Amino acid sequence: MPELPKILTRRAVDNSRLFKVDRVELEFSNGEQRTYEYLKAGEHAAVIIVPVTGDHRVIMVEEYGIGVGRYELGLPKGRVDPGETHIEAANRELKEEAGFGARKLDLLKCMTQSPNYMQHRTQIVLARDLYPEKLEGDEPEEMAVHRLPLADIAAIAALDNVTESRTIAALYLARDWIEHNG
Amino acid sequence: MPELPKILTRRAVDNSRLFKVDRVELEFSNGEQRTYEYLKAGEHAAVIIVPVTGDHRVIMVEEYGIGVGRYELGLPKGRVDPGETHIEAANRELKEEAGFGARKLDLLKCMTQSPNYMQHRTQIVLARDLYPEKLEGDEPEEMAVHRLPLADIAAIAALDNVTESRTIAALYLARDWIEHNG
Repeated sequence: MPELPKILTRRAVDNSRLFKVDRVELEFSNGEQRTYEYLKAGEHAAVIIVPVTGDHRVIMVEEYGIGVGRYELGLPKGRVDPGETHIEAANRELKEEAGFGARKLDLLKCMTQSPNYMQHRTQIVLARDLYPEKLEGDEPEEMAVHRLPLADIAAIAALDNVTESRTIAALYLARDWIEHNG
Repeated sequence: MPELPKILTRRAVDNSRLFKVDRVELEFSNGEQRTYEYLKAGEHAAVIIVPVTGDHRVIMVEEYGIGVGRYELGLPKGRVDPGETHIEAANRELKEEAGFGARKLDLLKCMTQSPNYMQHRTQIVLARDLYPEKLEGDEPEEMAVHRLPLADIAAIAALDNVTESRTIAALYLARDWIEHNG
């Protein structure tokens, strides 16, 4: 694992480039009124990829997350570029982050992160029949790539650097999906 | 399920009451520099509760989520109030949202939602030895309460109104934890 990035500057901003907030006044069917704020998201869901090898290992990558201030071990993921399908975006992100392409890709489930506060959706894509292929992305550094046994997700989720709910949910859903659909 | 709330007003805001954004300049160990924005969170993790009955059913609630614009079926959850422990907050939210107290509460795992963009953490609390007890919360309406078989999480996660990654991850982790720890 590389040493942590150095923080050069940090400041609070009101007019974020990345986060757009809507404020709504709601009236529930019982007449109760509430004001809520939520984060807006783009039109397309993001993708999170569960890359599974022929010997039932899942490929995970280590990426620095500024939200948590450390390296997190998680599934490859990313945004869908304009004009891309979820399948195409998943295969591109897999090549950029993990150095693999996939010949077999399945859409499993579209997840949300926080229905009360965020519009954001993330599509789980199961990627199999893998082959080595590296694409250059916009990542600031190479990610360390790990292969872990899909049979023991509880052990993966017990690691201190595996904390993201989307990664944990996607691992379990992929394992169940493979058991039921082969 | 009640009819959807009526949207009285909706507008974009820059100076959010709820969402605070920090912008940082980072230098990675290879010398690459990047600017990132992330959402700040309070000191305490939120809690998400997995309430399991003696006959191995999990109690879930239906709540309107403005981020998704519909009712979502999920686990009870909420913020930790000042002075509360995670266990106390979990038991309070369980009473407010689902109408149950728990005599046996276990901390399972602290999850994150998006390590690259959010500081937010959510502590999973397994709640067992349940008894009926209702507390008034600040919810705008009563939540519909459902009991679903913990043995078939894949079937729960296949429902169109079960989409939140924290709920799906917490269900699986709780089931694995019970299998290993009893």
